[in-house]
Amino acid sequence: MPSLNHKWIQQLIDHKLSKELMKGQFGLEKENVRVDRDGRLAITPHPKAFGNKLDNPYIQTDFSESQIEMITPSFDSIDETYRFMEALQDIVSMELDGEFLWPSSNPPQLPEDHEIPIAQMNDPIEDNYRAELADKYGRKRQLLSGIHYNFSFDERFLRQLYETDIGHKEYKEYKEFKNAIYFKVARNLLRYRWLLIYLTGASPVFDKTYIERCVAKGEPLDPNSVHFPNMNSLRNSECGYRNEKPLYVSYNSMDEYVHDLTELIHAQQLLSVKEFYSPVRVKTVKGEHPLQELVHVGVAYLELRFIDLNPLFKIGISKETMQFIHLFIVFMLLKKDEPFSVEDQKLADLNHDQLIMEGIKGCLHDHDDDGATMEKTALICIEEMQEMVSLLMPMEKEAYLHILDKEKEKILHSELSFAAIVKSDIQESSFLSYHLDKAKQYAKESAQNGYRFVGYEDLELSTQLLLKAAVKRGIRFKMLDRDENFVLLTKGDRNEYVKQATKTSLDSYSTVLIMENKIVTKKVLQQHGIRVPKGEAFQSLEEAMSTYPSYLDKSIVIKPKSTNFGLGITIFNREFSKEDYQKAFQIAFEYDRTVLLEEFIAGKEYRFLVMGDEVVGILHRVPANVVGDGVHTIEELVRDKNKDPLRGRGYKTPLEQIQLGEAEEMFLKNHSNSWRDIPQSGEIIYLRENSNISTGGDSIDFTDEIPDSYKNLAIQAAKAAGATICGVDMMIDNIEVEATESNYSFIEINFNPAIHIHCYPYKGSNRKADEKILDLLFGTNTD
Amino acid sequence: MPSLNHKWIQQLIDHKLSKELMKGQFGLEKENVRVDRDGRLAITPHPKAFGNKLDNPYIQTDFSESQIEMITPSFDSIDETYRFMEALQDIVSMELDGEFLWPSSNPPQLPEDHEIPIAQMNDPIEDNYRAELADKYGRKRQLLSGIHYNFSFDERFLRQLYETDIGHKEYKEYKEFKNAIYFKVARNLLRYRWLLIYLTGASPVFDKTYIERCVAKGEPLDPNSVHFPNMNSLRNSECGYRNEKPLYVSYNSMDEYVHDLTELIHAQQLLSVKEFYSPVRVKTVKGEHPLQELVHVGVAYLELRFIDLNPLFKIGISKETMQFIHLFIVFMLLKKDEPFSVEDQKLADLNHDQLIMEGIKGCLHDHDDDGATMEKTALICIEEMQEMVSLLMPMEKEAYLHILDKEKEKILHSELSFAAIVKSDIQESSFLSYHLDKAKQYAKESAQNGYRFVGYEDLELSTQLLLKAAVKRGIRFKMLDRDENFVLLTKGDRNEYVKQATKTSLDSYSTVLIMENKIVTKKVLQQHGIRVPKGEAFQSLEEAMSTYPSYLDKSIVIKPKSTNFGLGITIFNREFSKEDYQKAFQIAFEYDRTVLLEEFIAGKEYRFLVMGDEVVGILHRVPANVVGDGVHTIEELVRDKNKDPLRGRGYKTPLEQIQLGEAEEMFLKNHSNSWRDIPQSGEIIYLRENSNISTGGDSIDFTDEIPDSYKNLAIQAAKAAGATICGVDMMIDNIEVEATESNYSFIEINFNPAIHIHCYPYKGSNRKADEKILDLLFGTNTD
Repeated sequence: MPSLNHKWIQQLIDHKLSKELMKGQFGLEKENVRVDRDGRLAITPHPKAFGNKLDNPYIQTDFSESQIEMITPSFDSIDETYRFMEALQDIVSMELDGEFLWPSSNPPQLPEDHEIPIAQMNDPIEDNYRAELADKYGRKRQLLSGIHYNFSFDERFLRQLYETDIGHKEYKEYKEFKNAIYFKVARNLLRYRWLLIYLTGASPVFDKTYIERCVAKGEPLDPNSVHFPNMNSLRNSECGYRNEKPLYVSYNSMDEYVHDLTELIHAQQLLSVKEFYSPVRVKTVKGEHPLQELVHVGVAYLELRFIDLNPLFKIGISKETMQFIHLFIVFMLLKKDEPFSVEDQKLADLNHDQLIMEGIKGCLHDHDDDGATMEKTALICIEEMQEMVSLLMPMEKEAYLHILDKEKEKILHSELSFAAIVKSDIQESSFLSYHLDKAKQYAKESAQNGYRFVGYEDLELSTQLLLKAAVKRGIRFKMLDRDENFVLLTKGDRNEYVKQATKTSLDSYSTVLIMENKIVTKKVLQQHGIRVPKGEAFQSLEEAMSTYPSYLDKSIVIKPKSTNFGLGITIFNREFSKEDYQKAFQIAFEYDRTVLLEEFIAGKEYRFLVMGDEVVGILHRVPANVVGDGVHTIEELVRDKNKDPLRGRGYKTPLEQIQLGEAEEMFLKNHSNSWRDIPQSGEIIYLRENSNISTGGDSIDFTDEIPDSYKNLAIQAAKAAGATICGVDMMIDNIEVEATESNYSFIEINFNPAIHIHCYPYKGSNRKADEKILDLLFGTNTD
Repeated sequence: MPSLNHKWIQQLIDHKLSKELMKGQFGLEKENVRVDRDGRLAITPHPKAFGNKLDNPYIQTDFSESQIEMITPSFDSIDETYRFMEALQDIVSMELDGEFLWPSSNPPQLPEDHEIPIAQMNDPIEDNYRAELADKYGRKRQLLSGIHYNFSFDERFLRQLYETDIGHKEYKEYKEFKNAIYFKVARNLLRYRWLLIYLTGASPVFDKTYIERCVAKGEPLDPNSVHFPNMNSLRNSECGYRNEKPLYVSYNSMDEYVHDLTELIHAQQLLSVKEFYSPVRVKTVKGEHPLQELVHVGVAYLELRFIDLNPLFKIGISKETMQFIHLFIVFMLLKKDEPFSVEDQKLADLNHDQLIMEGIKGCLHDHDDDGATMEKTALICIEEMQEMVSLLMPMEKEAYLHILDKEKEKILHSELSFAAIVKSDIQESSFLSYHLDKAKQYAKESAQNGYRFVGYEDLELSTQLLLKAAVKRGIRFKMLDRDENFVLLTKGDRNEYVKQATKTSLDSYSTVLIMENKIVTKKVLQQHGIRVPKGEAFQSLEEAMSTYPSYLDKSIVIKPKSTNFGLGITIFNREFSKEDYQKAFQIAFEYDRTVLLEEFIAGKEYRFLVMGDEVVGILHRVPANVVGDGVHTIEELVRDKNKDPLRGRGYKTPLEQIQLGEAEEMFLKNHSNSWRDIPQSGEIIYLRENSNISTGGDSIDFTDEIPDSYKNLAIQAAKAAGATICGVDMMIDNIEVEATESNYSFIEINFNPAIHIHCYPYKGSNRKADEKILDLLFGTNTD
């Protein structure tokens, strides 16, 4: 029976270790089978966008080519881990074309066993291993999907624990102590896993195309699906994912564990350690020889392998469930130790199977056989966990007790368990449509997160997009300075340091300095024979007048150096007299001591995003506006336009909402409009002078509309400055006409161009500038 | 007789062109023969530091290998041109090892003709040309050196002049008009050159090793030198640098000029256009076929070829002389036109020769033969120039009239002429020692300008050094943004943009961003296995205390995040109890909400300048100090130390003067000293706590003292950040001991390291960091 070790608890209190106790590292791995629009297993290849299956640390395939595995790095908090998994789900979902992630651990409608595609790994060892598994277990069984919950205690905590009486008195070496801690927790988890299976199981129903033998045993729920009356998790049942016959491996110590596993492999009962489908594994750093490394390095973390995909939640698990599992693991640490012989293991297996077949109401098998029921024991566990929380976690007490209360309710009322809810929901529709609807709903939610990297929303949008693209193709990232959007991207041996998405090693320092300095940019462009608006600055009328002969046949603009509202500006179109010229300067000098003369180029401004030898996207920005429909008022049209999920506030979205503010009202008034006016159908009403996105402007993609002649000019300008990544701003008179000597003009070259505006424009398609940066940094993504 | 063209002057006044009239572009070319310490012609090769003789646009050889030619670019002002020539002289002088620039147009003591080394150009055409010249004129004559004064009117001025009645009425095309203007000035200059030769001639005496025939004609001045009684310029005499027999080429028009020269070449009277030793040449852009280009492009500038090197001035000419020549050229433009037939040319030659042999007092040969003397005509010229100044240059009138007055004095009193002064000075010593003393004096002045690029003193010292090094090896430079120290360096096809000397294309943007961010730098170094001081920041005592086990066996420093005067800092050396640890944090938390814990590394801080794969220099900075001599007071010692020309004020010198200020006085007082104390011999008295150069600290070179193990670490650190050029700051416990695991520590990596401190340290040698940057940008400088 569970029972807290109060001596240990006292040590923790005495050494002020309760805060450290709850620290740890969390990781999730999960599989989802891909299905087509109709919910049938997708037999298409793993999307190429995810790169090489063996290299991508985040997105891989599992047994089947149709089974995507998503792996989070380990994080210091459940929150981060949860959100990274959500981001992975978003990234994967976005890439699936007409396919969806099946949200259940139980496979969807399956073809014949041999038609299920085994993952093609292009690696003889991996391919051979999968072929052997297919033979041994059948392909259908391998399609059962689930979640692995990985956990390690905080290293500093364990070291401090070792310093207390609990540790160094009994263990000579820290490593020995640490192994003992993890094996203890593993033993307890194995013993009490029935409770976690009860509380997390969420796959009570399965499709009738599943393994015949299992389908035959079950009862039909609807014409196409089957269940066993009390079963909450097919995956954890005898029809689930377990070794052919029970294997008993000692969890008493590292030595015994490694010894027993080695024996089983030698006896060819296991193909490799990987085939040891224990519900709980002790794991070490990844390597070629897992057992050797385990001995050498010691246990690094625990892997809980029996958690179902929960279709009630987008990523298959809720944050609360993750927190409960964490509390339960801590409880397993602080519980008194109990022996765990082969007999105990068999009892644990028995309890496991009984939970599956009879639910929580059955009796608990134990040496004492004191007639305790599972329900009663479960409630004792909850009680002791409550005590543990009260003693050690005063700060988070309320939140934790709330979680425990909810789990207690599930124990007392089995209709509240996940499995019961899922089954009841299925009964209201069908196994297929229930899960397919969920799949499509979650896919939609992911699409709405397109421009956002969940868990990294504090970063600039451009960086969020770049990191998502990196994760997608398996490039690892590390935050170097989060506030500065400074990251390290790693693929194999290659490290790339990137700040704000576009500040990379691809551009040299001097190139950036050229772009940063507008005077120098102009000189460099000129030097490379590229036309920039000619211009001069004058401090006196006399000086200005001496230049008349140079400009008399040109279109020019004469303007004060600083000007507002266009005051003091004169534009001449080729024909003007010396007197006109003088007057224009006289006017301009009334507004500023310095007057500028520049060649005048009419037209609209376009942003060319140049990357490498390519114009990746071209954008034109339009001031905040609405288009009338003859029915709604301007105010209504604004509110409606603001509903676009791409529009938000505070630069967290690709577009900003149009404000209903004073500036807009003033602008309307100046143009004889008001909020209540109803514009005619098709009439465009502007609400701002400037075209900034930050004041609700629209970004409109023109990449396909603008002739190559302009694109080539933009590339030339970038090359003149030596730039690999830059934003070239150009005035173009008329995009219907090819570039000539005088119908365009460069405004400036920018060295840190935003990329999200080209990926999520108001109008136009995603130009994938994020992917292009990665192509330039790491080479194109070819599988 | 000279006579101003008042019609033209009125046009200039009417069109407000008087300001533009004085604009123009100025260039100087000059030769100096190299001599050894004893004033004998140096027969060593042209220094390799100046790169390929044919490629270097600034520093070349002329006829002889011993004859250095220095060429300024053209500038908009006399001042810039003058100063650039001074800089060239500084650069060349600094590179000459035990040799000096002979400051006279007349050669020094010469060996036999055949022993004079002809310049080796590694170019068959160039080599052959020089061999032919040697045969035709003798090598000694070719060693006569001088100054070419290049001038062009402002292009905009000429265009505006063309728009007036002076121009477009008579000439259909602007180019035609422009050519006519330059030919007019050239004709007048040739006619009146006798006056300029009188006012600029400065080579009245020559060595008796000069051409025998000439020596025989002269009178001995001292045992080793010779003169002709009234001769002021040997170079302009019949013993000077002129064609074998007089050649008459028409200056009436471009067509006639080109025609006549072509004829002379066809008739083999000239080897090439280059051999046409006319005192005034019309020139165009440089090219393969000068005459063709002259016709095609038109005249670009005038070259006055008859100016002597003036030993009275460091660079061989004074700014006043340059200004007078400019005024004279403008006068030649505004003077009435006169015919210039072959007869006129002969008369001009006659006047030229007569000036040389008889001085200014002789009669002037003219068609009219009205008995005018040269003196009288010269005075008329000055008078008319005064009138010209008064009419057209009201702003600069006083300065110009002053210059004209001084020249007038020379006309009236021939003993005030340069030649007379030089001869008189020579008579007080000797031809040899007078010029050699001057040579050595000017070399010393150049050495004192070592760290300074004359004319560019507004730039940072590092940039001044880099540009001087560039000029030395013939890399052209262009200021892109002077305020920002942003330059373009060009060699052949290669362009390199450099800001502040060390911001170049050699470093990638991401590398700079890494260095700029101290947190990221530390992470990157750690990632590459490089030791940085471990450290943590704490916001609470509890948090801090939990780290005790990690540090209990380390040397650490616990300090408030911000601290002054070392308050709140505790340093532990390995052995400390948990109580000590806690107390240290408690103290630190009294001063700041954030407390830092860092590994403690004792020692001194050194700056490693890493460039490429090399540590170029290592510097240690010492606070402002003086060393006692048992005689002088601290104040006297400071004043004495401040006399070092490397010490100045306001960062215009490599070191700053030690202030006799309050801070220093307070520091002395705190250390029981005062300004009037007399320190013992060898006693070091510090005047500041900090070691900043800006407060008078000393920079001490340790490049040769510090073991390679530390240098390798610095290089490793630079490589980790990906840096090509950086300053690595390292704490070293004891430089007598090789680097171990724990006796050094990195402080930071800086991306814009000053280079001048390694070139001009207080103690130690010039580490030529400027040269190293150029090596990295353009490859090493091998001839």
